[in-house]
Amino acid sequence: MRIGFIGLGIMGSRMAANLIKAGHELVVYNRTPNKAEPLVALGAQLAGSPEEVGQACRLLFTMLATPEAVEEIANGPQGFLKALPGNSLWVDCSTVNPSFTLKMAKLAQKIGHRFIDAPVAGSLVPAEKGELLFLVGGDVTDVSEVQELFDIMGRATVHVGPVGQGTSMKMVNNTLLAQAMVAFAEALRLGTSLGISEEMLCQTLLNGPTAAPFLKLKEAKLLHKDFSPEFPLEWMHKDLHLAGVTAYEQAVALPSLHTTKEIYAQAKQSGLGEADFSAVYQLFSTNKTV
Amino acid sequence: MRIGFIGLGIMGSRMAANLIKAGHELVVYNRTPNKAEPLVALGAQLAGSPEEVGQACRLLFTMLATPEAVEEIANGPQGFLKALPGNSLWVDCSTVNPSFTLKMAKLAQKIGHRFIDAPVAGSLVPAEKGELLFLVGGDVTDVSEVQELFDIMGRATVHVGPVGQGTSMKMVNNTLLAQAMVAFAEALRLGTSLGISEEMLCQTLLNGPTAAPFLKLKEAKLLHKDFSPEFPLEWMHKDLHLAGVTAYEQAVALPSLHTTKEIYAQAKQSGLGEADFSAVYQLFSTNKTV
Amino acid sequence: MRIGFIGLGIMGSRMAANLIKAGHELVVYNRTPNKAEPLVALGAQLAGSPEEVGQACRLLFTMLATPEAVEEIANGPQGFLKALPGNSLWVDCSTVNPSFTLKMAKLAQKIGHRFIDAPVAGSLVPAEKGELLFLVGGDVTDVSEVQELFDIMGRATVHVGPVGQGTSMKMVNNTLLAQAMVAFAEALRLGTSLGISEEMLCQTLLNGPTAAPFLKLKEAKLLHKDFSPEFPLEWMHKDLHLAGVTAYEQAVALPSLHTTKEIYAQAKQSGLGEADFSAVYQLFSTNKTV
Amino acid sequence: MRIGFIGLGIMGSRMAANLIKAGHELVVYNRTPNKAEPLVALGAQLAGSPEEVGQACRLLFTMLATPEAVEEIANGPQGFLKALPGNSLWVDCSTVNPSFTLKMAKLAQKIGHRFIDAPVAGSLVPAEKGELLFLVGGDVTDVSEVQELFDIMGRATVHVGPVGQGTSMKMVNNTLLAQAMVAFAEALRLGTSLGISEEMLCQTLLNGPTAAPFLKLKEAKLLHKDFSPEFPLEWMHKDLHLAGVTAYEQAVALPSLHTTKEIYAQAKQSGLGEADFSAVYQLFSTNKTV
Repeated sequence: MRIGFIGLGIMGSRMAANLIKAGHELVVYNRTPNKAEPLVALGAQLAGSPEEVGQACRLLFTMLATPEAVEEIANGPQGFLKALPGNSLWVDCSTVNPSFTLKMAKLAQKIGHRFIDAPVAGSLVPAEKGELLFLVGGDVTDVSEVQELFDIMGRATVHVGPVGQGTSMKMVNNTLLAQAMVAFAEALRLGTSLGISEEMLCQTLLNGPTAAPFLKLKEAKLLHKDFSPEFPLEWMHKDLHLAGVTAYEQAVALPSLHTTKEIYAQAKQSGLGEADFSAVYQLFSTNKTV
Repeated sequence: MRIGFIGLGIMGSRMAANLIKAGHELVVYNRTPNKAEPLVALGAQLAGSPEEVGQACRLLFTMLATPEAVEEIANGPQGFLKALPGNSLWVDCSTVNPSFTLKMAKLAQKIGHRFIDAPVAGSLVPAEKGELLFLVGGDVTDVSEVQELFDIMGRATVHVGPVGQGTSMKMVNNTLLAQAMVAFAEALRLGTSLGISEEMLCQTLLNGPTAAPFLKLKEAKLLHKDFSPEFPLEWMHKDLHLAGVTAYEQAVALPSLHTTKEIYAQAKQSGLGEADFSAVYQLFSTNKTV
Repeated sequence: MRIGFIGLGIMGSRMAANLIKAGHELVVYNRTPNKAEPLVALGAQLAGSPEEVGQACRLLFTMLATPEAVEEIANGPQGFLKALPGNSLWVDCSTVNPSFTLKMAKLAQKIGHRFIDAPVAGSLVPAEKGELLFLVGGDVTDVSEVQELFDIMGRATVHVGPVGQGTSMKMVNNTLLAQAMVAFAEALRLGTSLGISEEMLCQTLLNGPTAAPFLKLKEAKLLHKDFSPEFPLEWMHKDLHLAGVTAYEQAVALPSLHTTKEIYAQAKQSGLGEADFSAVYQLFSTNKTV
Repeated sequence: MRIGFIGLGIMGSRMAANLIKAGHELVVYNRTPNKAEPLVALGAQLAGSPEEVGQACRLLFTMLATPEAVEEIANGPQGFLKALPGNSLWVDCSTVNPSFTLKMAKLAQKIGHRFIDAPVAGSLVPAEKGELLFLVGGDVTDVSEVQELFDIMGRATVHVGPVGQGTSMKMVNNTLLAQAMVAFAEALRLGTSLGISEEMLCQTLLNGPTAAPFLKLKEAKLLHKDFSPEFPLEWMHKDLHLAGVTAYEQAVALPSLHTTKEIYAQAKQSGLGEADFSAVYQLFSTNKTV
């Protein structure tokens, strides 16, 4: 069975490569086609448009950066949706907002297709090693149809619930990442203002019960002020923006999340948008950068 | 060597008991004397005032609830400071604010005594089992003088630095606790508003890298809405208040900490002050309680 | 010249009535047609759809509640845009967000029409008396073409700048309303917690230089806890939501605005959405309602 | 009757001068004595210590910068309290926090004196012109005893209530100043990000009902980026800090006030502490300064 794969960025390229290495035949597309070359070298077929991908398969993965990109690729003038054969299965791994996921699912279902939202937790290295965590929303039968493929790309799958809940869980998870990072940045700032070294603070706190485990992976960045991006700050800001919009849509008040969002907005405004999101610490760490 | 121990609440009573069980002779005091009875039964000598404790020993621990209580016990009309023999060692295990710790240290040093701040991480159960974590500020020689006693009451000691830094590290640590709890409460609220169950959210998030490990210990409270206090919400509010005052004194801006502080203030205002601090979730969890 | 007028709610009905009373011929439409009856009694012609309005005039006002409603009325299956004769002028008085205004302007311009955004400051009574303030974005010649009509419905016009800037100024203005209301609610709460009566606080502060003049108009509501809606709290929450989205689009950090937004979100969540936005005071005023 | 006056800064010097010009005999003291010279030239008698002021009069005004300064001057080793003859009247015009005012009142009353808190609204120019607004807490008979003097220094007196309520009202009033300034700064930033000029925004908004009247006095500062201090930003930050402490003492949640406080903290941290508090706009106005 041929599999379509659209979106060959940092994450998508590695996920697609793992599918090929496992023996699957892929038809791929990326807006900037040169990013597809390594995959073509591995044996993937390069399509000239999303529409061509749609014509060539009944199962299609997308891994794109924004809701706008997903909508264009799926439903734009050269979108794949209209080209897919009846009853195809679209698996969207993009990190988007729940109401957008539901809109895409409806678009697909209205013309006879099936839809799964399957965003992933994990970044470059887990993507490369096939160790992602899939957070999945969709029908049980649809999910079991692609479970084998999730198992190739990931170490585990959480089938959260019906369509939309994979996206929802991913959003919730990223709010925890964002908030823990800011809380730790403020904790470092408070501690250093009282004369404790960053090293002592990291050593004491990052091995204890009060800091989220992922923060340990940011220790070197914080200590050496090397904020080369693993997850760019401006993406985190975007995720918080979408969480804020979702909170409005669902009529829930989330004061801490919004304060955190504006702290990332300040960091972005001060020029840290393309740095790793842990660079939010720079906003606090010296008088100069605030 | 006789050891003084003042403040026999939830934590202090268990710490003192462990010292006695290890063979040390204790002179104890508590404002409400009946709390001292179990210790007297173990062999402690009960003093009638802090001053009497001061007269009876050269090494003295305090474990009290507020800066005001510490100041009264140490320096009030019946305070122990003036009664201690020269060059005594006062170890304050209370959770207070750094500038207050420095003030107490100066008071003690001015009249020829030595001072260590040694607040603890850990609550009732670790206190009982002798598994606390001591966060210590003081001179190396002073700390080594009481290391053996810390080892009886705790599983580990972090000698953070000079006087004040034990208190500082404890404050920083508690801001992480407070912020992680609010972030998780908001995450739960966002997730349930999107139709995911609390069980699914806890199961997925509390075993992952984005949630602080201690949150796992709050899972049952959150799921069963049983907010019997381990660490009362109003104490957390007090700690955040003192952290806010400290941020002002040190001239650092901590926007997320202050938003979190006011969320606990709202929770306290709505009647949750004596509940466990995880009860802050109630502020978010239903329309009724907001 | 016949004028189209779509959206006959609290504001639109009064604005349209003033145009008729000044001698203009109106073709009107409202989704719930019975709201048009008083205008029909004054001489307006009732159209069966937005499209019919478009067919009947070259100048058209819209006064609708949300971006979604404006888009449907203008560009939906029965929208007026496609029906208007070439080079018509569409004046949108709705309070929407700037990027949406620009999108509508482009839609209109692409098919040969002209566009003005002209939201109003002022509520029911000024609308009735023809004393609104028009905040206008558009070309100078287009604005002068309808200046006479603005003068009938309003006491003044501020031509802020090109298309979009009327909407932008309205948004900015409403953020001031929202923030001043919350600041005063918190000020009242702080003052009463210190034993000063609400009456003394209002009397002292509302006639001084530190309170926005409109707050004087809310004094009776605050003192008598009569929060019958002049401007519903949930609309203010919507405006703040749109301002938050706009801040994200324009990449500016607005921490105070977002905290204020979440305070209205809490108030809405506690059941105050349909009350006047001054009811946000209830969130602070007693322990019970927080 | 001789009047004591302690604290001859920007405000106190002008208030004292007005009393002298109205024919009153003054005994003055200031920590840096050269500030007293202009008053001595007007006929004031310069005391060598607060204690000497206390010995020389039965009515004494204080106008100092912080609670710490008031406490030292009143109750320090050379404090005036112990030197005043019995049943003297101390009028404290300093801007402090309510619980501190109550503490000072008790100190004075315990040794047989009377106390009034009478902070003022208004800055340099009104102080010079005798046009301050006195916000007064105290007994009716005590207040009427000094009403004549308030009338010399001010244009009006609000007798808010018993001791402490003058201070309380002043605190509440300053929170409105602080919040209105930040709200307007954010409004300007949102407006300029959408392409509207600062001039157009000020012109439209500062004459309308949504902006606090005092903001009009800041227009030139905002437009010309001339933030020479009328009321230094770090004093506003201090006032907000004291308001935050008071909110904690009174157990009320004030989320917007705390967010505003941290915005001033950021501004101070970025070097704007000695500028006028309207300089908080700099934090928002360009990418560079954030």
